[in-house]
Amino acid sequence: MPYITLEEHLPGITGLLEYRKDTAQPIRDLTQLLLRGPSTLTEAERELIATIVSHGNECKFCTTAHAETVNELLHETNTVQQVLGDVESAPVSEKMKALLIIAKQTQQSGKNVKPAHIERAKQAGATDLEIHDTVLIAALFCLYNRYVDGLGTSLPKDNSYFKSLAERLASQGYFRNPAGYDHLKATADNT
Amino acid sequence: MPYITLEEHLPGITGLLEYRKDTAQPIRDLTQLLLRGPSTLTEAERELIATIVSHGNECKFCTTAHAETVNELLHETNTVQQVLGDVESAPVSEKMKALLIIAKQTQQSGKNVKPAHIERAKQAGATDLEIHDTVLIAALFCLYNRYVDGLGTSLPKDNSYFKSLAERLASQGYFRNPAGYDHLKATADNT
Repeated sequence: MPYITLEEHLPGITGLLEYRKDTAQPIRDLTQLLLRGPSTLTEAERELIATIVSHGNECKFCTTAHAETVNELLHETNTVQQVLGDVESAPVSEKMKALLIIAKQTQQSGKNVKPAHIERAKQAGATDLEIHDTVLIAALFCLYNRYVDGLGTSLPKDNSYFKSLAERLASQGYFRNPAGYDHLKATADNT
Repeated sequence: MPYITLEEHLPGITGLLEYRKDTAQPIRDLTQLLLRGPSTLTEAERELIATIVSHGNECKFCTTAHAETVNELLHETNTVQQVLGDVESAPVSEKMKALLIIAKQTQQSGKNVKPAHIERAKQAGATDLEIHDTVLIAALFCLYNRYVDGLGTSLPKDNSYFKSLAERLASQGYFRNPAGYDHLKATADNT
């Protein structure tokens, strides 16, 4: 049971974004810019940053949703599993390894990002903007994870919910669907 | 030295908000809504939540800026000092004590907010919306603190900078001044 009264059929972040729509709008806008806006990082790379941070914060809703979104974007499930297991041996570029380590440090504390982490990323070809965006995406998911778990939101009854959510996040991004979450509700209720 | 190239005269968050203005806009919008929008919590109470979270994250720039903003709004310096020392004995309402404890728990992890923390707040008269906003403000400052420290931003040369910044945050809020930070720059450079 969530700590505040939310629409029952809306698990995780979805009930919160409907609860206070005025604050939801800039949260959606920021997420859309960072994860779907123009970038030299792919959408899957940016979703990996979101996933590794949510995993570090042990936020089950966000970790599952963004891991599934990576899978959807990459058409395979191996990369996200390996990244969450061990970044250094995961099948991603040296630059992405360095950025994922920066994201993991940021998740713990901004103060844990040390000059050596930045140096490694720059040596591997990361630009200032890529480093900036990595830290800000990591910081944003520290917001999301605390919002979702700090208000005790529910998980969906069936894990197939996350597949539907991920398909939508991969194909349509983070703007609010004019129809709200009715499609996802139907998917969740029918399983 | 910040980890990425920022305008030298802009310490803390201010250089970051100028570095990428498109992502700065929704961050400003969210902060303005939560800290200055209509609420049954006073502006000073909401700034106290921002301050206690920044203090927990040991973010010196944000802690000093928002502590000074509380002082500016309350016309005294005792409350913020006592809140940062010990919430339970601080000169704030029982409801605020319960909300500040929820903010402290959220700062550590969303999972640290337990039903007993929420129950205490509700017993003290906190509404669902006040609890929601407390968690979201706490989550937002976990974003800010990581953004500011994760990119190694600088502190101003002189602490009087924070007094000028706080005067502006108290009187004008979080929207971008059309003149940018020139007023604050002058203040910082002249001290």
